[in-house]
Amino acid sequence: MSETGKIFIVAGPSGAGKSTVLAELFRGRGDLFYSVSATTRDPRPGEADGVNYHFITADRFRQMINEDAFLECAEYVGNFYGTPKKPVDAALAAGKDAILEIEVQGAKQVYAKRPDAIRIFIIPPSWEELERRLVDRGTDTPEKIQKRLLRARVELADAREYDYIVLNDTVDKAAEELRAILRAEHCRVKDRIDRFLER
Amino acid sequence: MSETGKIFIVAGPSGAGKSTVLAELFRGRGDLFYSVSATTRDPRPGEADGVNYHFITADRFRQMINEDAFLECAEYVGNFYGTPKKPVDAALAAGKDAILEIEVQGAKQVYAKRPDAIRIFIIPPSWEELERRLVDRGTDTPEKIQKRLLRARVELADAREYDYIVLNDTVDKAAEELRAILRAEHCRVKDRIDRFLER
Repeated sequence: MSETGKIFIVAGPSGAGKSTVLAELFRGRGDLFYSVSATTRDPRPGEADGVNYHFITADRFRQMINEDAFLECAEYVGNFYGTPKKPVDAALAAGKDAILEIEVQGAKQVYAKRPDAIRIFIIPPSWEELERRLVDRGTDTPEKIQKRLLRARVELADAREYDYIVLNDTVDKAAEELRAILRAEHCRVKDRIDRFLER
Repeated sequence: MSETGKIFIVAGPSGAGKSTVLAELFRGRGDLFYSVSATTRDPRPGEADGVNYHFITADRFRQMINEDAFLECAEYVGNFYGTPKKPVDAALAAGKDAILEIEVQGAKQVYAKRPDAIRIFIIPPSWEELERRLVDRGTDTPEKIQKRLLRARVELADAREYDYIVLNDTVDKAAEELRAILRAEHCRVKDRIDRFLER
């Protein structure tokens, strides 16, 4: 492993199973840092500050924007969401890889600021399976599901710019692919050659 | 895994432990193809045709050059060595990854013909360790060892062009890194996105 960590952006359509795959990836991995987003929305029942989100005021959010304290931020249905820069940089400095589970638009912002970030797009095994998962979730109306499926097709066009696509066929296999990508990226020539030459 | 295999070039200085690491990588992996070189030199005691090398005549070697049947070839101390193209392409078509354990110069020739090949450079943990391994091998004179060490430094300059550096600290760790690289490379966007879009 290299001495400093790397940023891994994990994006993908709603219903691809990002959270489940990442939960599997993080099991027993103290060398990974999960970036918790800040938001101005109110906590929902069961949500804990600093775990699901950092719940902050609109004033504080504005202040953080002015301080350039976000790697990315966006408004969604009247609430604001952002990835705080400081905890990510602290993790990287401590040699941990920082995993950013974010939306495609947020991913673009992060990549513009940190072009050394590695971009991973998680996809479901097929369009049919994606639709089935969204239906099974039971939280969306049929119209909303069709809108999500259309958005997924639009977002997949962005995936062409990414480094990797992880196929979430089964959670275990997808998590293994993520582990392999993290490990392989630490074997990159640019990270290793100078350290060897110095010896 | 993708439907067709990929070429992985594995190079590195003499004494880096390429053969040992690859032997560990190949254990139980029927999905990998080890490219056996052709040579015009005579078999040494214990060497088997088709296992260590394909032992062929100078006439046949010349004919294969004329037929453009090598991915790379070179002369070394009066004998000729080459990587036959056909078995590699057959393996790729069968969905196997082809592993080419070759010299730095041969790697350049292969990469010129197959720019989609992934290049991995195996290095020992340190220069001191490389020297110790060459001494322990007991096959070279001190002068020859110094020459090998100098050549290793020259070859390492080429490693800057490679995709990955695998650090052969322990054989198990190095083989794990190779496995991760192979797996990660099969998650590349270009290999996966069109197959998903087709569905």
